[in-house]
Amino acid sequence: MNEVEITGPEAIAAGRRAAGTTRFRLTVEYDGGPFVGWQRQENGCSIQQCLEEAVFATVQETRTVYGAGRTDAGVHATGQVAHVDIEKAIAPARLMAALNFHLKPNPIAVTQCAVAVGDFHARFSAIGRAYLYRIVNRRAPAVIERGHVWWVVAPLDAASMHRAAQILVGRHDFSTFRASLCQAQSPIKTLDRLDVTREGEEIRIVAEARSFLHHQVRNMVGTLRLVGDGKWSPDDVRAALDARDRAAGGPTAPADGLYLTRVVY
Amino acid sequence: MNEVEITGPEAIAAGRRAAGTTRFRLTVEYDGGPFVGWQRQENGCSIQQCLEEAVFATVQETRTVYGAGRTDAGVHATGQVAHVDIEKAIAPARLMAALNFHLKPNPIAVTQCAVAVGDFHARFSAIGRAYLYRIVNRRAPAVIERGHVWWVVAPLDAASMHRAAQILVGRHDFSTFRASLCQAQSPIKTLDRLDVTREGEEIRIVAEARSFLHHQVRNMVGTLRLVGDGKWSPDDVRAALDARDRAAGGPTAPADGLYLTRVVY
Repeated sequence: MNEVEITGPEAIAAGRRAAGTTRFRLTVEYDGGPFVGWQRQENGCSIQQCLEEAVFATVQETRTVYGAGRTDAGVHATGQVAHVDIEKAIAPARLMAALNFHLKPNPIAVTQCAVAVGDFHARFSAIGRAYLYRIVNRRAPAVIERGHVWWVVAPLDAASMHRAAQILVGRHDFSTFRASLCQAQSPIKTLDRLDVTREGEEIRIVAEARSFLHHQVRNMVGTLRLVGDGKWSPDDVRAALDARDRAAGGPTAPADGLYLTRVVY
Repeated sequence: MNEVEITGPEAIAAGRRAAGTTRFRLTVEYDGGPFVGWQRQENGCSIQQCLEEAVFATVQETRTVYGAGRTDAGVHATGQVAHVDIEKAIAPARLMAALNFHLKPNPIAVTQCAVAVGDFHARFSAIGRAYLYRIVNRRAPAVIERGHVWWVVAPLDAASMHRAAQILVGRHDFSTFRASLCQAQSPIKTLDRLDVTREGEEIRIVAEARSFLHHQVRNMVGTLRLVGDGKWSPDDVRAALDARDRAAGGPTAPADGLYLTRVVY
C-alpha cells in the first residue's frame, strides 16, 4: 500500500479528490453492547449510523462511513478503521473533536483522524485485521467487566488451548468455523496468528489474518474452550477442521469478549 | 494478626463463635457506578445493603455485613473485604455461590469466601489498604472504559507526577487532602506508597497506607494532575501539604477512576 497520511493544515488540499471531497481516515473505538453491530440495519442503532449522523451534524453532508470490519452486534472495537468523504474544508483535528462532541451520548469515539491520500479504502485497502478475545476464568461472575468479557467458570488450561490453536494457523478451508449467513465467496482463509495466553484470571486470545469469515473468531474460541476444560483434545480440533462442517465445530463464543483491535494497511 | 483461614468442611465447626454463629470473610468486587457507596443510606442502594439482602435470601437471617473500606458513591472495588456472622451451617463455597446467585442483577460479586477464625474484623483488623486510580489521558473520550476511568485531555507528565507524589509519602498532617465531612479523629496518617506510572494512554496511581482520610486518594490525585499538566510544580505540592488546609489543595478527582484493590490483615 502506498497510502500516505498527512495531518497538517496542507492536508485538505493534498487530499482533495476528483469529486471535490476529501477522504478522511478515522480510527474508531466503541463498546458494541448497545448496538446492532457496525452496519446500518432496520432493527436498531448501528455504529455506522451513529458516525454518519455525527458527520451530518458536523458538516451538514449526508455521507456513507465505510468500516474495515463489519463487527457483529455486541462486538467491541479499540482499533476499527473507517473512511468518509467530506466536501467541506475542515482540519482533521477539528473534525475529530466535532465528531466526538456529537457522538457523546453513545459509547463511540474517534481516536485518530487523518486525511487519506490516494485510493485508500478502509475495507478494500486493508491487508490485515487483528482481534482480541477476553475470557474471565473464575468461580465468581465478572461484574466490573460485565459485557466486556466472556465469563467461564470451568478452569481452562490456556497452554493446551494454545497448542490446539496452532492446528488452525495457516491456510485452510474454515467451513467448520463459518456462520451459515457468511457472505464470503470462499471458505478458504489464511490464519496468521492464534495465540492463547493467561494473565491471572484472564485468558486472552489474539487472532490475526488478512480477513476472517463471519463468526470465525468466535467459533474458534468456542471450540478452543472445549480443549481448555478437557472435553476435547487437539486431535478433535484437527478432526473438526478437516470435517469442513459447521456442525463439527464447538459453539459460538458470545460477542461480549470480542474486540477488533487493529487494521493493517 | 493471628487470623487463620480454614476453607475445608471442618471450617464451620472451627469457626463457630460464642454467639452460635460462624464468621465468614468475603472478598468483594463491584462496579460502584450505580450505588450510593458501600454504606447503607436512605437515598439509594448501597453495596452493603445488596450483600445483606443476598445473605438474607441465602440463609433467612438478618445480618450486618461489615466492610474494610466504606467506599464512596461511584468508587469501585476489586478487593474489598467484608465479614458477616451466620448462624446456619453452610460451607464457604456454597455460601459464595448462593450470594453470587442472589446478587446477580447487581454488579457485585463475592470472589472469595472463607471462615474467619478468632477475632477477625474486616474493618478493625485491617492493617493496610491499597487503592488504584486510573486516568485515560488522550484527546478522544474513553468509551469502553466509561465510568471506570477519569478522562483527562491535557497531556500529563507521569514522571513529574510521580516525583511530586513522593513528597506526600510518609507521616503527615493530610488536612489539605481531607474532605470536610471526614470523621477521622486525626488528620495525621502515614502514606506508605504513592506511585504514578504510565502504560500507553493510561496513567495508573497506586496508593497504600494503613488507612486513609475521607477523599484523601481522590484529593491527592486531583492535586497531582495539576503537576502532570504543568500548572503546579512539586514545590507547590509541598506548600499545599504544609498549609494543612483543604482550600490549598487541588480539586477532588472523580470517583469513576478509583478502585479499592486490596486490604491487608
